[in-house]
Amino acid sequence: MRVSPQYSATYRVEVDETQAKLADVVNVVTGTEASITGLDVIDSDNGELSFDLTCNTKDSAHRREILELLQELHGVTVVSVQDATFLAHVGGKLSVEPKTPIRNRADLSRVYTPGVARVCTAIHDNPAKSFYFTQRANTVAVVSDGTAVLGLGDIGPEAALPVMEGKAALFKQFGNVDAWPVVLATKDVDEIVNIVKAIAPGYGGINLEDISAPRCFEIEARLKAELDIPVFHDDQHGTAVVVLAALMNALKVVNKRIEDVRIVVSGVGAAGTAIIKLLLAQGAKDIVGYGRTGALAADETEGMNPARKELAEITNPRLVHGDLKSGLKDADVFIGVSQGNILTAADIATMADDAIVFALANPTPEVDPIAAAKYATVVATGRSDFPNQINNVLAFPGLFRGLLDAHATTITTEILRVTAVAIAEVISEAELSSHYIIPGVFDDRVVHAVQKAVRKAAADLPKHQIPFQEHAQL
Amino acid sequence: MRVSPQYSATYRVEVDETQAKLADVVNVVTGTEASITGLDVIDSDNGELSFDLTCNTKDSAHRREILELLQELHGVTVVSVQDATFLAHVGGKLSVEPKTPIRNRADLSRVYTPGVARVCTAIHDNPAKSFYFTQRANTVAVVSDGTAVLGLGDIGPEAALPVMEGKAALFKQFGNVDAWPVVLATKDVDEIVNIVKAIAPGYGGINLEDISAPRCFEIEARLKAELDIPVFHDDQHGTAVVVLAALMNALKVVNKRIEDVRIVVSGVGAAGTAIIKLLLAQGAKDIVGYGRTGALAADETEGMNPARKELAEITNPRLVHGDLKSGLKDADVFIGVSQGNILTAADIATMADDAIVFALANPTPEVDPIAAAKYATVVATGRSDFPNQINNVLAFPGLFRGLLDAHATTITTEILRVTAVAIAEVISEAELSSHYIIPGVFDDRVVHAVQKAVRKAAADLPKHQIPFQEHAQL
Repeated sequence: MRVSPQYSATYRVEVDETQAKLADVVNVVTGTEASITGLDVIDSDNGELSFDLTCNTKDSAHRREILELLQELHGVTVVSVQDATFLAHVGGKLSVEPKTPIRNRADLSRVYTPGVARVCTAIHDNPAKSFYFTQRANTVAVVSDGTAVLGLGDIGPEAALPVMEGKAALFKQFGNVDAWPVVLATKDVDEIVNIVKAIAPGYGGINLEDISAPRCFEIEARLKAELDIPVFHDDQHGTAVVVLAALMNALKVVNKRIEDVRIVVSGVGAAGTAIIKLLLAQGAKDIVGYGRTGALAADETEGMNPARKELAEITNPRLVHGDLKSGLKDADVFIGVSQGNILTAADIATMADDAIVFALANPTPEVDPIAAAKYATVVATGRSDFPNQINNVLAFPGLFRGLLDAHATTITTEILRVTAVAIAEVISEAELSSHYIIPGVFDDRVVHAVQKAVRKAAADLPKHQIPFQEHAQL
Repeated sequence: MRVSPQYSATYRVEVDETQAKLADVVNVVTGTEASITGLDVIDSDNGELSFDLTCNTKDSAHRREILELLQELHGVTVVSVQDATFLAHVGGKLSVEPKTPIRNRADLSRVYTPGVARVCTAIHDNPAKSFYFTQRANTVAVVSDGTAVLGLGDIGPEAALPVMEGKAALFKQFGNVDAWPVVLATKDVDEIVNIVKAIAPGYGGINLEDISAPRCFEIEARLKAELDIPVFHDDQHGTAVVVLAALMNALKVVNKRIEDVRIVVSGVGAAGTAIIKLLLAQGAKDIVGYGRTGALAADETEGMNPARKELAEITNPRLVHGDLKSGLKDADVFIGVSQGNILTAADIATMADDAIVFALANPTPEVDPIAAAKYATVVATGRSDFPNQINNVLAFPGLFRGLLDAHATTITTEILRVTAVAIAEVISEAELSSHYIIPGVFDDRVVHAVQKAVRKAAADLPKHQIPFQEHAQL
């Protein structure tokens, strides 16, 4: 095994120069075959030398070996060890920058007092102007209570923050949307709804993130009903949009129509529910959803929560019962948003010819994608190291870009549907193949296509009426 | 009167080219003696030409004249008119930028999934790490309910937003602090306290702004008691700090000691209360506060709210009664944070020799500063067009810079006091004069001096313990 920048580490070391030398430290590190890439002195004071030693190592074990060897040196203290991932998070990942620098009195009088008072008065006279003269024009809140973060579960607001900062960074990088993390120290549905309503005057849209089901359904529904800005739960609708986009292209590859296929969905939480509803909106007729207790069916809804009951009633027209494995027989499409390794290649073999398998559990898919590909024609996962990655970043930046540009007040199922169509159509008929049903994360055609489609669809919906005709500001 | 860039205006004009020409528009504008500085075509489609015409004008009347003349032209529509101040606010004044660009898969895997999961886990294990590995390290919430904005009063959260954005821009520009506006659609004290507590996991400090008295006292006190990050109400403490700094230098100019002088404070709301308390902390002994009903005195507290009652009990040792004008007689220092034009030069003439007058009501001071200067040795105002401007921007950026650097959990009166001392000491004995008792807003010595003093003072206070010694991230 060779050293690699992927396993770069930075050791902050203090040397008592009466007992040890910097060269001792260097010798120990290079003696392990690590390659030193940086040596930055932080402080030198009264024979105490403090410096950062950065080196490429082979793996985590190699890094620990170096740490232990340094700790054995007399007169040497290792204050901290950081790797590149942790270093990328030091101090947070977002910067709030003034769009106009404030260098002199003229700048100050325009962006702050006394000039700002005229802008305040204009908005006070007509609050819709806030969507033009304030950050509401371009800003989305990324709201989480930290209850369902990645695969980590309920880790709380502080621990969720690095994810929300990353999300905000993606909003800016891909959609030029200013997004701001709002992590909440409460799990109470009423409190979350009230807080988001109270902070809404600072934002043009709300992106709910990593809130556990079924609480996320009520929070989203109530905010949509009570706010006049778009509310979107990415774990539900972002996933649903990208799944629909991938499915449309996968069906083209196998030459089947969405109206005709049998679809099995494993997992009826936030993502599964939204996927099912969006596929129905696109024309799917035969979807069966599976939870831990088997198929949801309208003739067997006792003890179900209201969200599942509703699902049971709008799906499963053949009233299928039983477990997931039996339900896979003769299915055309499997969509998994549940847990890793619950199916084998043999289960996939029971599906119809030209089967489509989306095994989206992360990091371990519902079925090994290599094995599944022996029997399925199209296989997709949530992972970046296999073909056909289903990644929400294809949807949310362009979606909110379009909504903000349109001064939209809401998001409809039709908007989600056209977003999916726009993503799917980025891949031309000529490019389409079983290994290329969905654009890559860094394909910059996607955001433009989505933004355009969303603006067009939003034009027919209610929007904030910003009175350009008024000349009050004279 | 001549045209000036200060009265620049941008007219968005649409011309139906079957009925009018662009040249007609230009002729009308130049015919009024306005000077055209820009002509930017926005769109040209089927004989409809849309463009922005920017010109320097003489004043608002001149701009309206141009508008009316253009509106009279057949085939010409004026869509909007903007001036430079409004244009500076279009789209909001803040940009949220990723500190690390996300250009490729390696970037993505460090700042987002899968790498971010390790950082989340580290914070979940020890939430104090959020002050190092997230935006909490450098971020302050600028919280307002929009109830006491500038001189405009209760204008609501949307209309307050331009001020809070400007404040956030100043935080960044002067203190390199990332600040974020949080405007709230509620005036309920309990709700505001609960919301700020709930969003606190995203911030390293809270700056309360433009919240009306006496509600602001309770909100600040409860948040200070219940949060483990610094809470600061700028309208109270920012003003108090800068007033104390200016007063220390003014007293040097007139060669008096704070312990010996008689101080009269007009206005016992948010600012007046905080000023009085900070002056007492610095050693002042004889302060009398005046509200609308006259001097606050401990032997006459019937019907007072608790905040005023407390003030009455800690001030006015000579139990002075009566109105402000009578109270001014033989006073050494007048500090006004009340309303414009309540005093005349004759009132100032009754003060002691070498009087100090801070007339801080904005935009109109309590007494005309030119007239006051006939009888007072030192005069200061809140305005930028007279010498000695008392401006909060001298305090808050450096103060929070120092607190964040120190990982402080609170703000004490001692921290406010050393902030004032640091600001005062920026002006050397040699520089000091009756016209130069306080540094200018753009004096970059200030933020460094304040930051250093605050870090030093905060070192002795409780702080977030970030475990650099742990090596969990290996």
